[in-house]
Amino acid sequence: MPKLYWEDFVAGGVAEYGPRLVTRDEIVAFAAEFDPQPMHLDEEAARATMLGGLAASGWHSCVLQMRMIADGFVLASASMGSPGVEEVRWRAPVRPGDRLTVRSTVLETRASNSRPGMGLIKFQFDMLNQSGTCVMTSVSTMMIGRRPPDRGAA
Amino acid sequence: MPKLYWEDFVAGGVAEYGPRLVTRDEIVAFAAEFDPQPMHLDEEAARATMLGGLAASGWHSCVLQMRMIADGFVLASASMGSPGVEEVRWRAPVRPGDRLTVRSTVLETRASNSRPGMGLIKFQFDMLNQSGTCVMTSVSTMMIGRRPPDRGAA
Repeated sequence: MPKLYWEDFVAGGVAEYGPRLVTRDEIVAFAAEFDPQPMHLDEEAARATMLGGLAASGWHSCVLQMRMIADGFVLASASMGSPGVEEVRWRAPVRPGDRLTVRSTVLETRASNSRPGMGLIKFQFDMLNQSGTCVMTSVSTMMIGRRPPDRGAA
Repeated sequence: MPKLYWEDFVAGGVAEYGPRLVTRDEIVAFAAEFDPQPMHLDEEAARATMLGGLAASGWHSCVLQMRMIADGFVLASASMGSPGVEEVRWRAPVRPGDRLTVRSTVLETRASNSRPGMGLIKFQFDMLNQSGTCVMTSVSTMMIGRRPPDRGAA
């Protein structure tokens, strides 16, 4: 796979990553380590909550998305990291056995003013389950290296 | 500890949670599972990046913060979860051996229009390292149950 530079991303570009199956054991193990609220740990306790049954921590969805986009394109790119996240919305529960995919849309690209070798790309990410229900939306910006003058297009 | 309800949080209220030591092994293990970019996995590769050395994934900071606030107050509250996050800014690298704390500030509280038993609280969270450097700021909203009529103040 040729390396992806900032120039390879254009506004309106759409791609899909995954799928990733989420197991009950993973949901409970993540929650026990990072977000030990009853609705993420215990089926019976979860039934009494707004989620109506065991559901993954919203942060678990975030990091599963990170792993899907890492495998999908970030590791193949000249990624320089990210300054942060503009918005995350947890829209529907992620359940044990869900098969998640991520659809990315390039919202905007711009060159960096301060670093000539870098560009910024604003993405929208939509995480969907196997039924096509959108479980999470987010907007975040990545910093990606620009193509060096001696490299051809990917 | 008496249970915390929505009424117990007031705009301007500040609290501090943690500390939490972050080890090199944890940084690398989290990155290997969820964000396997070289700057989070390998000291030598990381030295060549903008981070200038091994640093935790920004998502790792997010989930460590979740755990600190869970232990700090969420598990003692009538938490009903969260609709999402307004903003996350990764401001400085989190390094192996850092001792992190989280300072929370209540920005705003409001009753839910749709659910009379619930209120919303908007927090700003500032994550600091042992030198007082702010490594992450974020704004997010929590849904918390209102105090039932038969319960006195905490």
